[in-house]
Amino acid sequence: MDTAERLIESTRALLWERGYTGTSPRAIQSLAGAGQGSMYHHFRGKPDLAAVAILRTADELRSRAAALLDGPGGAVERITAYLTLDRDVLRGCPIGRLTQDPDVLADPTLHYPVAETFTWLCDRLSAVLSSGGLRSPLDPDDTAAAIVAMLQGGYVLARAAGSREPFDRAVRGALGLLRSGAA
Amino acid sequence: MDTAERLIESTRALLWERGYTGTSPRAIQSLAGAGQGSMYHHFRGKPDLAAVAILRTADELRSRAAALLDGPGGAVERITAYLTLDRDVLRGCPIGRLTQDPDVLADPTLHYPVAETFTWLCDRLSAVLSSGGLRSPLDPDDTAAAIVAMLQGGYVLARAAGSREPFDRAVRGALGLLRSGAA
Repeated sequence: MDTAERLIESTRALLWERGYTGTSPRAIQSLAGAGQGSMYHHFRGKPDLAAVAILRTADELRSRAAALLDGPGGAVERITAYLTLDRDVLRGCPIGRLTQDPDVLADPTLHYPVAETFTWLCDRLSAVLSSGGLRSPLDPDDTAAAIVAMLQGGYVLARAAGSREPFDRAVRGALGLLRSGAA
Repeated sequence: MDTAERLIESTRALLWERGYTGTSPRAIQSLAGAGQGSMYHHFRGKPDLAAVAILRTADELRSRAAALLDGPGGAVERITAYLTLDRDVLRGCPIGRLTQDPDVLADPTLHYPVAETFTWLCDRLSAVLSSGGLRSPLDPDDTAAAIVAMLQGGYVLARAAGSREPFDRAVRGALGLLRSGAA
């Protein structure tokens, strides 16, 4: 990996672990094994580097979700595949965790890909639910938002507990409810 | 309010807005209008102050939840009352947001009340669901975890969107699913 690449990957790892406010330029340089001059040669500063890092993380998240949500099977099967995807649960969601960072929300360049990721995910799940059919009067948009929220909150519960158990429980609970609401 | 009280309330506000890592002793002193000497007269430091602040916030959250979950009506009505409680959605959950703070999770005194809050809430909701009756084969513990997670994730989606709309959508979606799963 060249230096720019190491700086981006180090920023991604630190944003995931410590958030934006908790990540110093020095910590990025140290993890990347790059000097301060080298970092400022490649990027204007931490915000620029974070913008690239967040976009890349958001792209990965979308690709993984799309592969399963556009996969074979009915609505419930595809959503089951997505929710039960192998996840590093205790690390939390690398995109969702950024919503707790006021400095991210205050910077449109950082905030935008975070907002877009969830809009895209809710729309995608809603489309799957519309095609598969929910029992009346369940609304696909509302149900999709509930499922995406359940996943994000599952990470919160797992980190609170220091165990992935409540995450797995929430996923089972959500899938149970979804099956009972399926047409 | 006396100085100790102002320090505690300022810490609560800052923890909610900026998290633990993002809150400096100086910011607490400044918001409380207290000097450094005064802060260290009342508390050993930021961790002690944060521990008191988190316990108080957790107690408030429990009291508000218990009042509705122990209230009148069947399981779905009580859970509806809890989920549709008036909330400052865009500020996020003052307890849930702390799970994104590695420094909170690394300190048992700070981590414990966060973990306890969610364990208590899931248990309480599970008890309500057990009494009210879910359709077979829905599990009360799993369903409770899904509902608590949905609420936490609803905050994440709202902050990502910069609007409470996805939170309200997720709550409607969760209640729709819950009604379809009710016995």
